[in-house]
Amino acid sequence: MHSLTVYLAGQIHDDWRELFRQQTQERGLPIHFKGPQEDHDLSDDIGEKIKGKQPTKEFRDQAASEINNLRTRVWLQKSDVVVALFGDQYRQWNTAMDAALALEAGKPLIIIRPENLIHPLKELTQRAQLVVESPQQAIDALAYLFTE
Amino acid sequence: MHSLTVYLAGQIHDDWRELFRQQTQERGLPIHFKGPQEDHDLSDDIGEKIKGKQPTKEFRDQAASEINNLRTRVWLQKSDVVVALFGDQYRQWNTAMDAALALEAGKPLIIIRPENLIHPLKELTQRAQLVVESPQQAIDALAYLFTE
Amino acid sequence: MHSLTVYLAGQIHDDWRELFRQQTQERGLPIHFKGPQEDHDLSDDIGEKIKGKQPTKEFRDQAASEINNLRTRVWLQKSDVVVALFGDQYRQWNTAMDAALALEAGKPLIIIRPENLIHPLKELTQRAQLVVESPQQAIDALAYLFTE
Amino acid sequence: MHSLTVYLAGQIHDDWRELFRQQTQERGLPIHFKGPQEDHDLSDDIGEKIKGKQPTKEFRDQAASEINNLRTRVWLQKSDVVVALFGDQYRQWNTAMDAALALEAGKPLIIIRPENLIHPLKELTQRAQLVVESPQQAIDALAYLFTE
Amino acid sequence: MHSLTVYLAGQIHDDWRELFRQQTQERGLPIHFKGPQEDHDLSDDIGEKIKGKQPTKEFRDQAASEINNLRTRVWLQKSDVVVALFGDQYRQWNTAMDAALALEAGKPLIIIRPENLIHPLKELTQRAQLVVESPQQAIDALAYLFTE
Amino acid sequence: MHSLTVYLAGQIHDDWRELFRQQTQERGLPIHFKGPQEDHDLSDDIGEKIKGKQPTKEFRDQAASEINNLRTRVWLQKSDVVVALFGDQYRQWNTAMDAALALEAGKPLIIIRPENLIHPLKELTQRAQLVVESPQQAIDALAYLFTE
Amino acid sequence: MHSLTVYLAGQIHDDWRELFRQQTQERGLPIHFKGPQEDHDLSDDIGEKIKGKQPTKEFRDQAASEINNLRTRVWLQKSDVVVALFGDQYRQWNTAMDAALALEAGKPLIIIRPENLIHPLKELTQRAQLVVESPQQAIDALAYLFTE
Amino acid sequence: MHSLTVYLAGQIHDDWRELFRQQTQERGLPIHFKGPQEDHDLSDDIGEKIKGKQPTKEFRDQAASEINNLRTRVWLQKSDVVVALFGDQYRQWNTAMDAALALEAGKPLIIIRPENLIHPLKELTQRAQLVVESPQQAIDALAYLFTE
Repeated sequence: MHSLTVYLAGQIHDDWRELFRQQTQERGLPIHFKGPQEDHDLSDDIGEKIKGKQPTKEFRDQAASEINNLRTRVWLQKSDVVVALFGDQYRQWNTAMDAALALEAGKPLIIIRPENLIHPLKELTQRAQLVVESPQQAIDALAYLFTE
Repeated sequence: MHSLTVYLAGQIHDDWRELFRQQTQERGLPIHFKGPQEDHDLSDDIGEKIKGKQPTKEFRDQAASEINNLRTRVWLQKSDVVVALFGDQYRQWNTAMDAALALEAGKPLIIIRPENLIHPLKELTQRAQLVVESPQQAIDALAYLFTE
Repeated sequence: MHSLTVYLAGQIHDDWRELFRQQTQERGLPIHFKGPQEDHDLSDDIGEKIKGKQPTKEFRDQAASEINNLRTRVWLQKSDVVVALFGDQYRQWNTAMDAALALEAGKPLIIIRPENLIHPLKELTQRAQLVVESPQQAIDALAYLFTE
Repeated sequence: MHSLTVYLAGQIHDDWRELFRQQTQERGLPIHFKGPQEDHDLSDDIGEKIKGKQPTKEFRDQAASEINNLRTRVWLQKSDVVVALFGDQYRQWNTAMDAALALEAGKPLIIIRPENLIHPLKELTQRAQLVVESPQQAIDALAYLFTE
Repeated sequence: MHSLTVYLAGQIHDDWRELFRQQTQERGLPIHFKGPQEDHDLSDDIGEKIKGKQPTKEFRDQAASEINNLRTRVWLQKSDVVVALFGDQYRQWNTAMDAALALEAGKPLIIIRPENLIHPLKELTQRAQLVVESPQQAIDALAYLFTE
Repeated sequence: MHSLTVYLAGQIHDDWRELFRQQTQERGLPIHFKGPQEDHDLSDDIGEKIKGKQPTKEFRDQAASEINNLRTRVWLQKSDVVVALFGDQYRQWNTAMDAALALEAGKPLIIIRPENLIHPLKELTQRAQLVVESPQQAIDALAYLFTE
Repeated sequence: MHSLTVYLAGQIHDDWRELFRQQTQERGLPIHFKGPQEDHDLSDDIGEKIKGKQPTKEFRDQAASEINNLRTRVWLQKSDVVVALFGDQYRQWNTAMDAALALEAGKPLIIIRPENLIHPLKELTQRAQLVVESPQQAIDALAYLFTE
Repeated sequence: MHSLTVYLAGQIHDDWRELFRQQTQERGLPIHFKGPQEDHDLSDDIGEKIKGKQPTKEFRDQAASEINNLRTRVWLQKSDVVVALFGDQYRQWNTAMDAALALEAGKPLIIIRPENLIHPLKELTQRAQLVVESPQQAIDALAYLFTE
């Protein structure tokens, strides 16, 4: 059976990706998950950790982004489906960015978003392949790819 | 020996795909078949099953299509050859759609169609890589890829 | 002001394309329309007219399609938007084909279809950029591209 | 002299695009600007205005987005450079979306953002071709393309 | 009316391209023709003429080809349709090359070939968009693109 | 160690491909070879064998080519390098076609040709990645890919 | 007559591009030339000039490059042919970069280099479409595109 | 766990690639490294070794480059990330070429360069995904792709 690679874009402040990993294993789905660095502090520090102290906060951020974007680009290119989760908190421009990169690259995009974000996300969701409200629904859709 | 992935586009009202699976196994051909959801009721219900009750029949259909198209896009992108079967019944616009997606994506397309559909399908068949009248002929052509 | 080229895919049994040409002119929209050969008899005869008598009806159809597809491919590639009109009559596989070619080529697709075709067209419409029920609505949407 | 088409992505609540149009004219730069619908109410209403009353607020938004995205896709594809302006207000996921579509399509992207957005925009800006803090700086950079 | 660019690939030993230029003018077709250098001696000499004397006949040929291929690549990339004429004489590998480059680039290909070449050209013609036996037929097909 | 797939394009009248298979095995190179049907009679008959008797010799050839091209397209798309062998006999338009398809697809192309074909093949060889005179030289070049 | 756009990559320390502009005008060739900023000081200062003082010399260089690369990317994408001139002085990594960008984008590349650079440039020149030793030869080759 | 292929572009005069191979093994990273021929003499001789004595030094270099470029193209196309190391010595136009090929192909590029090369490499580094000063930093960034 063919296996699929799915990129899980979205915030890294809680462990929402766990549900994907766990259910996939329980249901025996041949899916590998990739995503951004989930350790938030490491994600912010990685630039100076590898490249050394930077002259300003802006350049510190830039250094971190060089390495976080390296990671994102490598795994996005290898993924067959991109799942992007939006929530009420944070600006989540990275999530919007990953979602749009998937759109333009022709990769099927699943957006998960709560009802109260319908309006501000309307253009992005209109171009997604599938829009759902919970991670569970996204997992069910991924499972459907393997039913015969 | 390299294996190939073949997408079998077409109606899901009878089990015509069985012949492909069975003969491939009997002749030892390294081919994996993919295709749409073959359980017709599930295919129509899947939207509301995953996303919940929709406000109108049109939006129910739209929800189902989000998920059916997710499936089609994922497996079409992974396929090396697309086989599209047309028959006398049903409108089969999905079949025409999958066939044309294959054309534009540069994937070799095999069309199977009965003689009486020659005229209405003439533009589509003219651009296919191979046009035959029976699944058996399509299987024979796939087998030819592996003769040395 | 930039002008756009719009391909009008769909049946050639009545003059529905006239409304597009007329309103565009009246509203001063910088749009050029392209489409298939609208003279139905010529469309069927063009193969033998150019290539001479063919051995069977099938090969007569094939000859016509070589030339009709030449036309479609040239103008589809030059178009910025594809409009595909579906109606109750005819099989309209050419329309479905042109619509799906547009999808895969990344060209924005507008589908016009009557309410009673919602179900059989559900997968195709789900991937269109815009779905409307009348040519007038499609024209209004095209006009919206030029409002500032 | 070659002219360029530049897409101005960003909020539509004030007339920041005026500066681009005015200075371009004053400095004699051969640049055409395109962008989203700047009449905010029209942008929200356009779906029901063209497609008629929708069953829910969500579907009203979806209808509007079909038409707004039609516009965005057409002009983004025709643009040579994309300028994306971020500000303190609004969620601006459309802006992030347009910026990322430009990135993936290989179109040079200029991001304008105030200093206090450096951190939340760090991944997106790291992949932009140019990051500035004011529209004036973006215009100066566009003018530089034409100095000989 | 949109104009088209058509590349006329094939031998340069007689003036078969004249018929295209002449009829296009007489019938008022908005077509620009491009093609290889038609002065055969110049085509063979151009390498040494520009780059100077080469050490061997092989390197003289290579120098000429650098410049002939420069020309072919530039105009093939700008063409909307490629016409390739095969005849009984010469090896015509350049013609086969240009035809196949068009195929892979997704440009519609018209092949003109006499009846006695049907067998050796069968794979190439099978993938062409249109196969005819005379330049006149190819011109008629090009004219068909402009009938309304 | 990564393995490579190499397509061996060229005549099918003698067993020149044996040398590639044999030396690759002897030298332990991780290369899989693909190519056209090497049984010449089968290659000519395959159309009627699968699709049944055709109305004319031309359509018999066309039927065979549908299936031979299916094979060629599938394996060319999967190959990392294309080797094209030219010789003194036969028209070899298929070989030129496969070579040019490789060029346009960005696949590295190795051409093998005898000295007396330098002139007629000069444009094709100028665009190849490597031009040699014997299969042995092509094999040596492939082996070089794996030296560390 | 079709006009062409040619990008002139290479050092900006003398006015070698003048010869191209002058001869093109004298010979009536429909060619537009584009290239990097030729005012060397402006090229180095442009970052701080537009973006303001930067914290270190490295970030000053980075700011300049953002804007110089914006210019290069825009005009390279619009060019039909890229000419890259190498000389004895300077590191010329920009020139090598522009040349390789052209190669990968499938744009025909002409390299001009003196005899003594044959060895260090051997891999780059081997993939160029044409290699010459003087700007005059490159101009002659461009003129050849327009001979009929 | 997905494995990655990384191409190590740069000079072949010392064994800097060893550190990558060794640390990758020690840290258990699933990375395969590819790169140019590291035996410098073989790299220069390979053309004549395979193709025989060439008429001039220039053509000797050309023959070697045909084969070295064959190698580079094959492995660059298979790589997920390209690392390009610049140093004080040598012209390193091959390194700049490989780096730019990676940029245009959309492959994430890591550049390693000493501080004193900041100015001459500023345009190339500005477009890289990540710029570091030592191989160790590049390895640390590659390791970061696999942290969960």
